[in-house]
Amino acid sequence: MDKYDEMHFAKLDTDREKRTGFPEVVFCEGKRDEYLVQIYKRLLENDGRVFGTRANLHQYETVKTAIPGVQYNEVSKILKCAADDSASKNTSEGIGLITVCTGGTADIPVAEEAAETAEYFGGRVKRIYDVGVSGIHRVLSKAEEIREANCVIVVAGMEGALASVIGGLVENPVIAVPTSVGYGASMGGLSALLTMINSCANGITVVNIDNGYGAGYVATQINRLACGSKN
Amino acid sequence: MDKYDEMHFAKLDTDREKRTGFPEVVFCEGKRDEYLVQIYKRLLENDGRVFGTRANLHQYETVKTAIPGVQYNEVSKILKCAADDSASKNTSEGIGLITVCTGGTADIPVAEEAAETAEYFGGRVKRIYDVGVSGIHRVLSKAEEIREANCVIVVAGMEGALASVIGGLVENPVIAVPTSVGYGASMGGLSALLTMINSCANGITVVNIDNGYGAGYVATQINRLACGSKN
Amino acid sequence: MDKYDEMHFAKLDTDREKRTGFPEVVFCEGKRDEYLVQIYKRLLENDGRVFGTRANLHQYETVKTAIPGVQYNEVSKILKCAADDSASKNTSEGIGLITVCTGGTADIPVAEEAAETAEYFGGRVKRIYDVGVSGIHRVLSKAEEIREANCVIVVAGMEGALASVIGGLVENPVIAVPTSVGYGASMGGLSALLTMINSCANGITVVNIDNGYGAGYVATQINRLACGSKN
Amino acid sequence: MDKYDEMHFAKLDTDREKRTGFPEVVFCEGKRDEYLVQIYKRLLENDGRVFGTRANLHQYETVKTAIPGVQYNEVSKILKCAADDSASKNTSEGIGLITVCTGGTADIPVAEEAAETAEYFGGRVKRIYDVGVSGIHRVLSKAEEIREANCVIVVAGMEGALASVIGGLVENPVIAVPTSVGYGASMGGLSALLTMINSCANGITVVNIDNGYGAGYVATQINRLACGSKN
Amino acid sequence: MDKYDEMHFAKLDTDREKRTGFPEVVFCEGKRDEYLVQIYKRLLENDGRVFGTRANLHQYETVKTAIPGVQYNEVSKILKCAADDSASKNTSEGIGLITVCTGGTADIPVAEEAAETAEYFGGRVKRIYDVGVSGIHRVLSKAEEIREANCVIVVAGMEGALASVIGGLVENPVIAVPTSVGYGASMGGLSALLTMINSCANGITVVNIDNGYGAGYVATQINRLACGSKN
Amino acid sequence: MDKYDEMHFAKLDTDREKRTGFPEVVFCEGKRDEYLVQIYKRLLENDGRVFGTRANLHQYETVKTAIPGVQYNEVSKILKCAADDSASKNTSEGIGLITVCTGGTADIPVAEEAAETAEYFGGRVKRIYDVGVSGIHRVLSKAEEIREANCVIVVAGMEGALASVIGGLVENPVIAVPTSVGYGASMGGLSALLTMINSCANGITVVNIDNGYGAGYVATQINRLACGSKN
Amino acid sequence: MDKYDEMHFAKLDTDREKRTGFPEVVFCEGKRDEYLVQIYKRLLENDGRVFGTRANLHQYETVKTAIPGVQYNEVSKILKCAADDSASKNTSEGIGLITVCTGGTADIPVAEEAAETAEYFGGRVKRIYDVGVSGIHRVLSKAEEIREANCVIVVAGMEGALASVIGGLVENPVIAVPTSVGYGASMGGLSALLTMINSCANGITVVNIDNGYGAGYVATQINRLACGSKN
Amino acid sequence: MDKYDEMHFAKLDTDREKRTGFPEVVFCEGKRDEYLVQIYKRLLENDGRVFGTRANLHQYETVKTAIPGVQYNEVSKILKCAADDSASKNTSEGIGLITVCTGGTADIPVAEEAAETAEYFGGRVKRIYDVGVSGIHRVLSKAEEIREANCVIVVAGMEGALASVIGGLVENPVIAVPTSVGYGASMGGLSALLTMINSCANGITVVNIDNGYGAGYVATQINRLACGSKN
Repeated sequence: MDKYDEMHFAKLDTDREKRTGFPEVVFCEGKRDEYLVQIYKRLLENDGRVFGTRANLHQYETVKTAIPGVQYNEVSKILKCAADDSASKNTSEGIGLITVCTGGTADIPVAEEAAETAEYFGGRVKRIYDVGVSGIHRVLSKAEEIREANCVIVVAGMEGALASVIGGLVENPVIAVPTSVGYGASMGGLSALLTMINSCANGITVVNIDNGYGAGYVATQINRLACGSKN
Repeated sequence: MDKYDEMHFAKLDTDREKRTGFPEVVFCEGKRDEYLVQIYKRLLENDGRVFGTRANLHQYETVKTAIPGVQYNEVSKILKCAADDSASKNTSEGIGLITVCTGGTADIPVAEEAAETAEYFGGRVKRIYDVGVSGIHRVLSKAEEIREANCVIVVAGMEGALASVIGGLVENPVIAVPTSVGYGASMGGLSALLTMINSCANGITVVNIDNGYGAGYVATQINRLACGSKN
Repeated sequence: MDKYDEMHFAKLDTDREKRTGFPEVVFCEGKRDEYLVQIYKRLLENDGRVFGTRANLHQYETVKTAIPGVQYNEVSKILKCAADDSASKNTSEGIGLITVCTGGTADIPVAEEAAETAEYFGGRVKRIYDVGVSGIHRVLSKAEEIREANCVIVVAGMEGALASVIGGLVENPVIAVPTSVGYGASMGGLSALLTMINSCANGITVVNIDNGYGAGYVATQINRLACGSKN
Repeated sequence: MDKYDEMHFAKLDTDREKRTGFPEVVFCEGKRDEYLVQIYKRLLENDGRVFGTRANLHQYETVKTAIPGVQYNEVSKILKCAADDSASKNTSEGIGLITVCTGGTADIPVAEEAAETAEYFGGRVKRIYDVGVSGIHRVLSKAEEIREANCVIVVAGMEGALASVIGGLVENPVIAVPTSVGYGASMGGLSALLTMINSCANGITVVNIDNGYGAGYVATQINRLACGSKN
Repeated sequence: MDKYDEMHFAKLDTDREKRTGFPEVVFCEGKRDEYLVQIYKRLLENDGRVFGTRANLHQYETVKTAIPGVQYNEVSKILKCAADDSASKNTSEGIGLITVCTGGTADIPVAEEAAETAEYFGGRVKRIYDVGVSGIHRVLSKAEEIREANCVIVVAGMEGALASVIGGLVENPVIAVPTSVGYGASMGGLSALLTMINSCANGITVVNIDNGYGAGYVATQINRLACGSKN
Repeated sequence: MDKYDEMHFAKLDTDREKRTGFPEVVFCEGKRDEYLVQIYKRLLENDGRVFGTRANLHQYETVKTAIPGVQYNEVSKILKCAADDSASKNTSEGIGLITVCTGGTADIPVAEEAAETAEYFGGRVKRIYDVGVSGIHRVLSKAEEIREANCVIVVAGMEGALASVIGGLVENPVIAVPTSVGYGASMGGLSALLTMINSCANGITVVNIDNGYGAGYVATQINRLACGSKN
Repeated sequence: MDKYDEMHFAKLDTDREKRTGFPEVVFCEGKRDEYLVQIYKRLLENDGRVFGTRANLHQYETVKTAIPGVQYNEVSKILKCAADDSASKNTSEGIGLITVCTGGTADIPVAEEAAETAEYFGGRVKRIYDVGVSGIHRVLSKAEEIREANCVIVVAGMEGALASVIGGLVENPVIAVPTSVGYGASMGGLSALLTMINSCANGITVVNIDNGYGAGYVATQINRLACGSKN
Repeated sequence: MDKYDEMHFAKLDTDREKRTGFPEVVFCEGKRDEYLVQIYKRLLENDGRVFGTRANLHQYETVKTAIPGVQYNEVSKILKCAADDSASKNTSEGIGLITVCTGGTADIPVAEEAAETAEYFGGRVKRIYDVGVSGIHRVLSKAEEIREANCVIVVAGMEGALASVIGGLVENPVIAVPTSVGYGASMGGLSALLTMINSCANGITVVNIDNGYGAGYVATQINRLACGSKN
């Protein structure tokens, strides 16, 4: 009858899907092994499927001992499972269109976290990688494709200038994701974050450094609105 | 035939409305008087209307000598005019719904910049002010109203915690606007910006400190998508 | 006759309990092995019990060779011992009430440091974990319980907004403990610290990042005052 | 029947005193004149008295035209009034004891904000000013007096070291208030804030830079608990 | 015979032109009136001309009383004079080509400081203003012109992304000048500086915020090398 | 009998000269007029002379109404007086040798604060101004003179590199004083402070930004030791 | 026909050499093994040679399995190969002159990255190492040699003062490279970066911390201009 | 005949002792093994002894293979050797008096670096450890001893308040050494550095975080001046 599931070390927000249209997702990083396993098992019972981000290999192996069918992607660090085998199926036939761009190759893990999140929540996703501004013809050659999306996710580290360029080209919202890719004065992604927050282009909003999941979530919200689908 | 209007000190982006669905808007702050007047006159000729943000009283008076019908709002600092008198009319019959919330009373100028921007671009706007988290019953009493919006703009200074609470209550995207309201360790709004960027709630994206215009712009994009209206 | 015990590499503050009502406590982190063992032995002789924080497993094993009965908690990192076996007993029958809340599951180690500290110094402690603001109904469902405490300790990382919400609900002081839980712009807990320092709610004071011990200490001072017990 | 008083630009938290034991207080800085006057009038009607902080001379004069009996203190910047004349009376016969110390003479305005706040809320206050650590005999000569307080407020700018010294001398909680007094690398009080947050002494918690009001509020909470008085 | 001219409050580096190919230039900002006048007079005697940057109107008027022919540009804040009337002449017939671009209109004062510096030292300068990345077609339409320069100076505030785009288009060095144009998280130009320092494009080096003079100086060095002209 | 003079808003440290060899000095900045006058009068009675730093013109005029003989230096901002007329005399016949160097002309006010402080406390001072590293021959031409000092004070803003060069040339201690001279990324002197703290040269210690007084004080301590004079 | 080579995870900028005079270079740090190998193979096919920076030993060994002739320098971390054996030959007979100076011995790896880059792109390079300002006679003894270069690269950590001294000695541009060499307040090279950005000397521009490659690239551009050679 | 010994990767400053009274010292951290060994051997030949700081165990073992008599102290990380066996002897019979104090036990390694440096350069050193301000009676009980020193070195981490207290007690200079001891908002020692730079006490100068060597060097300079001994 309570709107959450009391586990003492955690209170699973069982009301969340009804309230927000999205089920609870697990942020694996830093969780103790015994807690993580219990949470995966409980959510699998409650929801029939579980989606977790920032899992490392050790956590994958730990959860696997309890839930043999759990699936792990080494690039995106996503660890997911489903009571039936739907987890592996719902990635290609989504609704609407979300496009995920990266500045460089090193930004791909964060972009994949975003893309897989959006796919998991039912969106169709297109990936356009390595189109950073130092070779501006690359992103311009994709401009028409990018303009078709209901929402564009731009993932970039170092100086993060790609978001401003894309923001000036499109009609729909741009979610900018700074990454920790870089060195020296990139300060772990703070420079890219500042670039994006100060963008002279309109239509750009920003999420935390490396927060691919957050970008995929908001893009899903926007894509659903554009498709007239609430969830 | 060029896609911009060359004024030497400025290149007005006449292609913008076609490309992005929004006309060029003037950021007045720091512009020299003679430049500002020329830009307002040129845009008025080109577009039939002009919308500018962050104008001060002196700039209003300066532009007024050239364009007598220009309208100025002291709270939002918006300076706008129209060839016909539409500028004063299009504020109430907008489409969809965008809700603008503030943490406190001192955040209202930024909220009004956001609200008037969204109204200018054709959206319906509801204002819910002074619902900061230190009296949480205030925002909770408005939760149903807030949930109806296609997009919620949350404007807050000091610690900026309101965005996280609202993010957990709604289904649609939340645009968080940190403000420079505060003192001491608020560091001109950087603390509120960091709070919002680090939010544990999903569905929150962030714009620059005091950037009400940017929030109103993105909210318009989302609201248009939700209404199936491109512009 | 001196008010401290001269060990050359350390001067144990033997006057402290008389002056402040609290015996000297050992901050284990970064202490050399030989120093740590000597300090534990000396304090055990002087005070009949020792309480240390931030011990790692290696330090536990090192001290154990000298003091076999030493007890270690892997979650809270507390390493304690007693001449008699009171160390293991005094955790449940304390005076007054201190409540320790966390935003998430990952904040539990810091919360446990706070809770065990308060229990060690004689207070009764209630734990309410994983009630972060993104599911505000969780903390609201516990509001009456939280209001009963003489002092509330709020432990939260990421954006640290929980302190402001609880501060607005209760009559008694709130000690806010930012944690290093988070990533990207959380900057190792500095963002949460700034959020808490800038809180718009009243009745909130802040200690250092991850300083569960410090929060447990102050909560004990307040709880003792409320109980009319000096120590 | 709502628990707040809807003024549209503000929502006065009329439930606050019942919930927290303290009435709503006005943070005057940055409020527009017309808003400020309306808030003072409404609160005076509701509560019979109003207490505001960080008022400037212009605001005093503005409010005075509407509420002639309003009282202003140029040092503490407090602007208060009462339906009867109690505002001027309740400053000396308070309960318990709160002691307010400053490092230097320039810290006095913040200290007075703290002291007057605590007195307004019913506490007895003792002031010990200009006892900074560069002449350590000054604070030591007052040690016994300081130890008598239920709560000590330490107000200091520059390097803010006074809090640590007092923290080591007393049994009851110390509220540290960093001030913006200083120059160069004091960075507007951030250095003093960091000093206090990192204090090696126990029993110290910190509020925002120059936040005398916040310190006075928490000290009142603690003093009431010590006196067995809830409000 | 010393290589400097001893004025006690200053030591004019009379050897500089021989050593570096450039005469001493006066940084006017913050200099006391009497010092400024004496320096202008002494340099005019020594070198036959004087070039100063960051002069305000008051300083212009002060120097004018001593040197009536001094010339002041309100936009660039450059204050210069010559024994003969060459100061007003050498602006159009320079060698080589240096191109100065700005992101926006508000960056023009810094760009003019750079352009006039380069012209004063004998270079030919082309100005291309208001070509920020949010309307990328503007800078692309000028790409061929920009590529002709021996050195490109890119002046931009806010997020400063223009430097990276231009860096990817040209063969010759790009000098990036961050400006203090912006608000909120632009932190007085630090964000733009960080963007430029972290640029993913090659061939970009950076000078201090608003340092138009420094950029004009280096561009002159490079332009001279390209023209085979040492000075 | 107490070791300080209780003035309530201040506690003058009358024991200081005996304890440290230096009388109390007044930091005027930010002191209220009535406090400043009382402090000057009291110290003049106690010590027969008063020395204050960072006084502005208004403060000079205020103190002058009470103490007509007070002397003010507009460059160094020092405000001093003496019961007899010794204040104006003791500037030239000091002991030992302290040399004060500046990087540029704009650093002179801070250098004069240092130099006058050292002279007031009885040292002989030599001034060598405008010898910044961009014309390294200037400081090298003075190397022998600089080496004669018992202590060298190096005052520099912008990048503050002069301290490292001088540190490598001399045998005796160098006190480095960063100044707030600069713009952009100089961040009010923090950059120069960091340069000096990170110096690769030995024998350099640093005081706060613009703290000429502090440097003059330490140089006096060292100079006295070198002269075998305690005070 | 596209101007890039689509590899999905990367888009190799095959147009770059034509557009900028420089072929694509690989930034190895953080690239996944399988991506790195594919990029090296593809570039080797396209360009006949590959040049990569910031490779670690593991990456060298990985690439070596696919391209046995690849060459690795442990100091500079450069990993290069050529279809013919030209990679090992073109280091000594370059055009013009670029001089690379370091402050200390620990700066050599960054300096070597710069020097080898410049050599790879066809320049003649002279190395002058360990001439930091704390022994100023060392750099002065090399002044004539340094003055001969078309461009000077100055590599320095800690306080980074060497750039300012050299800037004052030479006629041609100085590229300053801050390094992460240092500890404490050097903050990973940020202090040196700030020093260099704030330099009082003219002719200095700055690249990112440890960015030897970027410095070598710009120096090549300048050196080519000076030699009348475009590539 | 040159004043340095050219080793290509290093230029040993053989003139240093004559110029500054101190021989060259080796900063071992980050030096490559082959460089380190060559430098130790060359300096041993030139000077008859070598003194190096921040050596790790691996470096000790590496140098030992070439110079079997080299001595290593694991606490201070000092690695020294002498042609004769003087290295091990000159620690107790020094001139004058330098006192080294620490706030806590964890500051001892830095303090030992300072103390051994001062002893190596011929000073007499007294150690007073663990006298932090949270138990102020400890440092006060040593006040007379501390006052006897010609120079006091204060080593403290966390909030670093000890320097201010000692500065107010003594007549001679205090060298403050912030340490990286602490956690959370101590930011690796930056907080302690800021505390010390902003000290309200006079006579305090500051060196870099953990720079025990630098403090020992300056203290030696001062101690020599006080003893009338130049070296």
